[in-house]
Formats: sequence, C-alpha cells, structure tokens
Amino acid sequence: MLYVKTPEEVLAMIESEFAPLERTETVPLRDAMGRILAEDIAAREYVPDFDRSTVDGFAVRASDTFGCSDAIPAILPLQATVLMGQGADFALNEGECVAVPTGGAVPRDADSVVMLEYTEDYGDGTIGIAKPAAPGMNMIFRGDDVYPGKVILRKGRVLSSADIGALAAIGQVEVKVAKKLTVGVISTGDELVPPEVQPGPGQVRDVNSPMLEAMLTAFGCYVNNYGIVIDDEALLAEKVNNAVLECDAVLLSGGSSVGVKDAACRIIESVGRLLLHGIAIKPGKPTILGKAGEKPVAGLPGHPVAAYFITKLFVQPLLGRLTGRDMTAYTVTARVTESISANHGRAQYHCCRLTRRDGQLYAQPIRGKSGLITTLAGADGYFCIDRDCEGLPQNAEIQVTITGGV
Amino acid sequence: MLYVKTPEEVLAMIESEFAPLERTETVPLRDAMGRILAEDIAAREYVPDFDRSTVDGFAVRASDTFGCSDAIPAILPLQATVLMGQGADFALNEGECVAVPTGGAVPRDADSVVMLEYTEDYGDGTIGIAKPAAPGMNMIFRGDDVYPGKVILRKGRVLSSADIGALAAIGQVEVKVAKKLTVGVISTGDELVPPEVQPGPGQVRDVNSPMLEAMLTAFGCYVNNYGIVIDDEALLAEKVNNAVLECDAVLLSGGSSVGVKDAACRIIESVGRLLLHGIAIKPGKPTILGKAGEKPVAGLPGHPVAAYFITKLFVQPLLGRLTGRDMTAYTVTARVTESISANHGRAQYHCCRLTRRDGQLYAQPIRGKSGLITTLAGADGYFCIDRDCEGLPQNAEIQVTITGGV
Repeated sequence: MLYVKTPEEVLAMIESEFAPLERTETVPLRDAMGRILAEDIAAREYVPDFDRSTVDGFAVRASDTFGCSDAIPAILPLQATVLMGQGADFALNEGECVAVPTGGAVPRDADSVVMLEYTEDYGDGTIGIAKPAAPGMNMIFRGDDVYPGKVILRKGRVLSSADIGALAAIGQVEVKVAKKLTVGVISTGDELVPPEVQPGPGQVRDVNSPMLEAMLTAFGCYVNNYGIVIDDEALLAEKVNNAVLECDAVLLSGGSSVGVKDAACRIIESVGRLLLHGIAIKPGKPTILGKAGEKPVAGLPGHPVAAYFITKLFVQPLLGRLTGRDMTAYTVTARVTESISANHGRAQYHCCRLTRRDGQLYAQPIRGKSGLITTLAGADGYFCIDRDCEGLPQNAEIQVTITGGV
Repeated sequence: MLYVKTPEEVLAMIESEFAPLERTETVPLRDAMGRILAEDIAAREYVPDFDRSTVDGFAVRASDTFGCSDAIPAILPLQATVLMGQGADFALNEGECVAVPTGGAVPRDADSVVMLEYTEDYGDGTIGIAKPAAPGMNMIFRGDDVYPGKVILRKGRVLSSADIGALAAIGQVEVKVAKKLTVGVISTGDELVPPEVQPGPGQVRDVNSPMLEAMLTAFGCYVNNYGIVIDDEALLAEKVNNAVLECDAVLLSGGSSVGVKDAACRIIESVGRLLLHGIAIKPGKPTILGKAGEKPVAGLPGHPVAAYFITKLFVQPLLGRLTGRDMTAYTVTARVTESISANHGRAQYHCCRLTRRDGQLYAQPIRGKSGLITTLAGADGYFCIDRDCEGLPQNAEIQVTITGGV
C-alpha cells in the first residue's frame, strides 16, 4: 500500500532509489557551457607560468628605491626592455631597472614594478624613480593563479561562462561531462487537442507537452515529445513501453481522472515497480512515480500548474541525481504584497511577480485556480507556504525561488 | 576630452546613445524558449472556453443540496453523464444532477460540482449527495484563466518554460521575437596564444575569446569569434572594420598596454565616435566604448576578470537595450564570511561562493589579484563594495547577484 508522501520523503526516496548513471562524454570547450562536469578539474601547470607585471613601468629591486621621492628620485640605469609576449630569461642587475609592459615578464631578482607615472626617462639611458617600491608591488608571481594539482572546479558543477574562461586559462580544451539524458514526454487525455488546433466543445489545448519540452530542454536534456495519446489503456501502455525503450526517463502527464490514474499506475506496474502514489503538496497531489528497470517513469498531474511545480520540485532533482548534477538553488527574500490563505495539511506553492521599491523586494502572488496556466505566465518565481501554516499576513517575509527566464 | 565615468553614468549613456533596433522575426513556439518577446501578447479567446469541473463528481445546482448531510443525503436523479473531451450543450434540470469527470464540461445552470467522495450511486438512477455544495465550488468558469484582450505577456520578456505553456494554452503557436544579435569578439595582445597551445616564455593563453563567446551565446547572441590579433594597429583596424560590417556589435578585448589602448581609441575614432574612456570600477577601469554608425564598439580590459565584469555590468545591458530586453535581475541577501577592504573612490566587484548554514546564506569572497581567472571559476555570484565604502567587516550583510550556471 502506498501512502501520500511529504516533499521531503519524496526527495529522500529519489536519493535512495536512483543512483548517478556515470555516463560521460568528452566535449570541446566551446560546447561545454551549461554542461555538467563529470570529474574534478585540477591544473597541470602553473598559471601564470612566469612572474608578470600588472602595470606599464619599470621592474626594480625594491631596496634600490627605498627613500626616493619626487624631490630626490632614485636614478637607475635601464638594463633592458622586455617586450610583450617574450620571456625575460635574465637577472636584473643590482641598482638597475628593466622596462616592462602590463602583463609582460619580469626578470629574475626583480621583486616589484614601479608604474610609469612615477618615473621619468632622462633620455641618457637612466630612469628616475620618484616613488619607493614595496616588494611584490604591481606583480603577479608564477603560480599565483593556479599550480599543478590545484582543483579549480568540482564534479557536478554546471559550467558557467566564467568556468569556461578558467578552463581556457589552464589549457583544458576538452572537458569530460555527463551525457545528456533523453526524456520522453507523453500527454494523455481525451479532452486534449494540439496547441495549433481550435478546441471544440469540451476540449482544451495540450499545454503540458510544449511546456515540459521547453523546461527539460533548458535543463539540459534531449526531449522525445510523443504528443497526445487518447485515454486508452492498451494504447497508452504501448506508448509508455516504447518510450521506456527509447528514453532514459518517461513523463506521462494528464489522466487526472480516477480511471486514467489507475491505468497509469497499472501501466507503470506492468513495466516496473510503483514507488509513490501522491505527494502532499498543492498543486500537484496526484503524482505517481515508478521505476522500469532503473529508469524513472512518472505520472504528472494533468493541470499545467501542478505539472510545472512537480517538474521543478521533483523531476528536475531526479534528473539531476541521474547526472550527478549540483542542484544548489538560491532564493531571494521578499515581502508578500497581500495576505494569502493556505490549505492546512499540504505544502502550498504560489507563483509570483517580483518588484523592488525603495530597496525592498515585494512578491505579488499571481492569483488563479489550479490548472489555469496564466498563473504561471510572466511569473518571476514561486514561494511555498508550509503545510503547518494557515496563511501569510500582508508584508510577511518569504523566500522566493527565482524562475524568470527559465 | 573624456573623463572616467561612474557606472551609473555609463548605464545612463547606454540608454541615451543607443535605441532598440526593433528588428523582429516570427518563430514557432517550440523555438521560442529564452527568446525576447517583441510585442505584448493578448488572448484572442476565452480559456477555458467552457465551464469545467476541477474534480470527478456530480454537477448540481447548489440550492438543491442545501441542508443535506451524511445522515440525510439529498437524493438527485442522474440526468446525464458528460464524457471527457465532449461538450455539455444542455441545461441541468432543477433537482437533478449530471456526472462529470475532472476537466470535463459542466452543463448550463449547474453552479457547482460535488466530489465523488461525498456521493453515493444508489444504482437506481439516483445519486445521494452527502455534503452541501456552495455556488462555484469545484468549478472553473469560462474565461477564468483568460478572456479576449487580456495581456498575458509583455514585450521585452525573456520567455520562460511557463510562458511557453501559457502561449500554448491560448493557441499562440508562432511568436514575434527580437532577432538575435551577432556580436564580434576579437582578442588582441602579442602575449596571447590559443587555449590549445602550450604558452612559451612570456606568453599566456587567450581566455577572453572563449569566455566571451560562452557568455554571449548564453545571453542569446550569435558570436563571430575572430580569435587573436597581434598588436599591430593597421591589422587590428582592418579586423575591427570587417567585424563592424559583419556584426551588430564588436568587442575588442586586451590591449591593456598604453600603446595598444591608444590604438584601440584611434581605431574606434576612425570607424565612428568615442563615447567613453574609463569607468570608475575595479576591476575594469580601462574600458572604452564607441559607436560606428549606430553599432557599439567596445574595448574591454585584457584581464579576464575585468573583461567578465565589464561584460556583465555594461555589455549585456547594452545588448539588452538594442533588443528591448527586460533586464530585471535579482540579488540574494547574504553575510560576508570575512572582512574585506576596498579601494576608496571606485566601486569594487568581488566574486564569491555561496553556502547556506542554519537558513542563513553566507558569501565567501574568492581571493585573487585582478586578471587571475580562477577568482571566477566556481563562483556562484558577485557583490559590489560601493565607491564610498572603505571595506566590509566580517558578517556584514551584502546583496549578491547570482551567476552560477550562466
């Protein structure tokens, strides 16, 4: 017998029932943005590989400049000029200086660089230094950025553009990442017509398959969209069976009527094992989850808003688990613009729009009955009212998870 | 004469000097995710187009159930059964009921639906109702979600998966969006080698062109990556000229040495007009911006960290301006894990990692000298220390802009 589970129990079950697939592939750096790193990345060399100047100026031994000033500059013979992109494979003589450009190599035994602005070229082969240097000033030393063995990115990281830059810096031009999952999406319901069709009496457009395709593609999956299947158990069973063969995970949405829900349970049981029947959240209670072999097969609610929240809250963590993805998410603190009541006994999710006034962030709940897709349209994020909470007063502080643009 | 400008002055200049291009194209819904909406979207019909039940049960006139209870149910003859996906083009008789599935059509003159759980089928053509209905209970009425003329998404919105769902619901299967911009990226510097090459003495790998390509692609642009050009003014001028012809905007990065910076200014002046020479932020001061016709041409600092911040803080808003993109961004409140000093007189940006302990978010600044790319690697976001602030004590509250994964 399967009871309705709390969200925490469902997330714990995902952890215990599903393991990372550890399926990896190697991609060139330019295709690695947004992919999930499949191994720790450690540097194999020093970056930079030589001592560098951070300014245009003159490399010196700091001790040769101690005590100098505008009035009494230190006068140092110019020993050499380092050019950009060339090495400086020599030692700075005591009491002399070497011209270096920004980013240029600094010769051995130089310990600091004086900026051009504090120097004067006397034109006779000597340079006047009007400001004392401190050791280390205006220099980056070999290995300051990375050294061999230093881990710069951890397995599971979703690679950002800054990470791509770091990988380029250490010469990691190929990256081992988790293989993309293929997720099958099936909508079921006799009332559904494709979005391009004008609904007849009693019909509505299929919202879930285009929405889930967009969500899962943005989440880094390939999507096999099987479209709409009518409420016929044999036909549905055949479609689910095919999808299980062709995909790494299958999402069946719709069938919120009792008969179809039961059919979905039977179909999942016929291809594998039922793990879950119902989650104590609103919207989204009539959710089922099973396993066909090691592949997850989920039955999402037909209501688009419920399907959306179940996908965000449970399907994405499940797909993240399979790919070893770091699922850390951040929330913003905001004040709710109006009082809002909640159903006692179930965690309740609301979409909201965010606005900032006088530095304070405000969350305006988007009102609407469950199943009405426009409560999602234009949303910037969502918040949860805990199961033990009967509602929120106006101006209550809440944590909003940002979704806008994704 | 061009003075160093504050970040606010630079953003105001972007608004005044550049206007939305208003170049649009129409894409199918399945390609619209992440695109910038080029017009307000209003519904042209009612959603739903008929009164619907939100539960499996019996449609009734609420007044026929007033006063009923478990002990004394209201006994109503079953007038008809509505099937899923079919209309209910008839009126409910007074004192009778109609069976409806979840999502099914409710007949005229019914004003509520009683859940199956509170009813009993006596098997003789009558149904016992054990719980009084209130008008409107368990129903969604025609147009509850949208009605003709209701604006559901505003011009400038970056379309999310939920928005895709809303567009499917109203049958908007093609969407007018801003055309993607093509941005040219050029790295310059005699010290640069491509990431796949082992740097020789005095050389470093080109970080900026792969990083900028990843950033701008994720931001929704096409990128023409022109790779590395040596510090030769004539050659660079030719490359910039070509890029201006082929692209909507050109980013030249590197050339932080005085001579090359001057060359970049001269090149921008030769193809158009110089607008800006220097921004009062750290890192990123040596930034230039000009216009070739109406096309922006920017000279970014060569230091990767500086190039990163200039792109986030100014280039993306500029590209957003050209495409009419809503640039609202959210920050999270966190406490800084260690004290941090700042240069008086310039706004100073730091990357950080975020961790949550006991419900409180902490920001760990990633230490490193400007130009060292690994201060970006693994960052979850960044924060700013204001120009008038000399530093932050440990545990100070800061606003962090989230970047992880992008």
